[in-house]
Amino acid sequence: METVLPYRQLFDFTEAIFLKIGSKADDARLATSVLLRADLRGIDSHGIARLSGYVRLWEAKRVNATPNVRIVHESPSTAVVDGDGGLGLVVAPKAMEIAIGKARTCGTGWVAVKHSNHFGIAAQHAMMALEHDMIGMSMTNASPLVAPTFSVERLLGTNPICVAIPAGKQPAFVADFATTTAANGKLEILQRKNMEAPSGWIQKKNGESSVNPHELKDGGALLPLGGDRDHGSHKGFCLGAWVDIFSAVLSGANYGPWVPPFVSFLAPPADPVGEGIGHFLGAMRVDAFRPVADFKNHMDNWITRFRDAKTIEGEEAVIIPGDPERESERERTSKGIPINEKVIADLQELGARMGIRPGLSH
Amino acid sequence: METVLPYRQLFDFTEAIFLKIGSKADDARLATSVLLRADLRGIDSHGIARLSGYVRLWEAKRVNATPNVRIVHESPSTAVVDGDGGLGLVVAPKAMEIAIGKARTCGTGWVAVKHSNHFGIAAQHAMMALEHDMIGMSMTNASPLVAPTFSVERLLGTNPICVAIPAGKQPAFVADFATTTAANGKLEILQRKNMEAPSGWIQKKNGESSVNPHELKDGGALLPLGGDRDHGSHKGFCLGAWVDIFSAVLSGANYGPWVPPFVSFLAPPADPVGEGIGHFLGAMRVDAFRPVADFKNHMDNWITRFRDAKTIEGEEAVIIPGDPERESERERTSKGIPINEKVIADLQELGARMGIRPGLSH
Repeated sequence: METVLPYRQLFDFTEAIFLKIGSKADDARLATSVLLRADLRGIDSHGIARLSGYVRLWEAKRVNATPNVRIVHESPSTAVVDGDGGLGLVVAPKAMEIAIGKARTCGTGWVAVKHSNHFGIAAQHAMMALEHDMIGMSMTNASPLVAPTFSVERLLGTNPICVAIPAGKQPAFVADFATTTAANGKLEILQRKNMEAPSGWIQKKNGESSVNPHELKDGGALLPLGGDRDHGSHKGFCLGAWVDIFSAVLSGANYGPWVPPFVSFLAPPADPVGEGIGHFLGAMRVDAFRPVADFKNHMDNWITRFRDAKTIEGEEAVIIPGDPERESERERTSKGIPINEKVIADLQELGARMGIRPGLSH
Repeated sequence: METVLPYRQLFDFTEAIFLKIGSKADDARLATSVLLRADLRGIDSHGIARLSGYVRLWEAKRVNATPNVRIVHESPSTAVVDGDGGLGLVVAPKAMEIAIGKARTCGTGWVAVKHSNHFGIAAQHAMMALEHDMIGMSMTNASPLVAPTFSVERLLGTNPICVAIPAGKQPAFVADFATTTAANGKLEILQRKNMEAPSGWIQKKNGESSVNPHELKDGGALLPLGGDRDHGSHKGFCLGAWVDIFSAVLSGANYGPWVPPFVSFLAPPADPVGEGIGHFLGAMRVDAFRPVADFKNHMDNWITRFRDAKTIEGEEAVIIPGDPERESERERTSKGIPINEKVIADLQELGARMGIRPGLSH
């Protein structure tokens, strides 16, 4: 069961919540637009469904509502940003602005972020580069849910990567993906519906393959992209490890099994190796490589050639990364955003508890 | 059947071949050490087994033995390098030197390369950064063998990515992987042995899944990492596309289905969209982010924690990326390199044809 609510209503409610926990006006507006971008783009697991989780982390004093986000180390093309325990929804866009500024003067800019929290969808941050005719990149580490190849321990998060590349007449190429076979959000959908997962998504706590989406509650793990050794899971492990090291070892955040859980009912590890969680953000000026018009013409040619590829019978087209999310954004901006009834109930409870008037109506 | 030959003998023979096609002394030595690094590291498909292929491309006037490798566009942290049709074995390390030089002054350096050829193993170039306490990255596009998700057309190469990250007491983290379920070299081994491939590696020319490793000769294709849509092949497609765009659209090389074939018996496309094939190389100074000693201590901790993870019963350990190749390099440097008899016969024929005395003995 879902109810379609207008973006504006969700925005006002979410902004009121962030103001209520003490965020400054600018930060509350920023966090709201970053969070809801997930709902607009159809990534329902990363949007307003997580709002009450952010608030509970704040209640547990694991989120700082008024962070002093600042550069603690830099070179002409790099910086390390200390997020001061703020919402990743606020810290990451500020860090991305720094990357973009460095790219403006230096060709490229690369910012590793420590002491942050969950940053919403990776695409939101990488896409900030597009309007500047830059390529954007973003990655983040996350709570350990993933077992490396041959491990029974969960040592990595679903650690997503986004690469956003501008085009000319064609829309931008925006690839945003978890480095696991399936994102945790997809597993949550199967859990809600009590459906089996394809093999290769999860393993039991002893490492045997499983199709039971509830396995993670019993010590099981998500699997790296590839699924098993024969299908390249060691490559998925390489990708997740890369994200973890760039996001956290380079910045001074927690990495691997030390990443604090995103949920308030699980305590952070008692022996942290760094501060908070980490992100890695990058911007590359296209004209630091070749004239923008040339690049965009060739990107248009690339996109068109791939979109027009001959398909397997029964399949409509090769999907250019970013196309489905852009279509969702177009539709949901005008028609509203379908919200699951359980999420609405959770938000209404949140609104009542936080004294938000009016609460979320439907 | 294999014969073990000492590295020195393979080096002298290979260097003599490169000198014979007209390479300058420095370039011949460089190309030889880059090519044979693949054999040392156990990536037999990318080493001396390809030497006669490089020569045939030169005979077909598709390789320039005396390239003028030069910067054609730059910013403080970036450059585009024109490889002038040279061997990738020579062009890529020269471009990586430029990236390292830019990182020295600017924190990071990023070089897109056009008009190049096959560059051997990606790890060779990324690892150049390690001795400078830098993180190294390398990627290259390649002849189209891979069908994007839902496509029956082969539009991408196996497009590898390497990330090399220095550590302290632990050896470096070196992840080097094709962005397909399986590298083409693994398929060639199955072809030679007439063995079936796991499902998810290849598809028939109509897009149906296949376990026949000979399918590629009949219009079939390799599959992106993930294998099929249910297992995340769209993410493998994103990775391969990313490599293609960074390597070629950013540099002005050929991309997608326009990448010229690596074999001389197939003609390059008649309507090129750029020059040669493309690479993308990067270097990031660790101390542009945090003090080198801190970083290395945490890398050691990261590596140790993952290597010591509890494993699935019957599995020895979680493999840290780069461990197997380093072990191979240690062993083969001292004990010699096992070369397949067919490869030896091919090299003896090559030596005789090129008038190399002494030829390869065994």
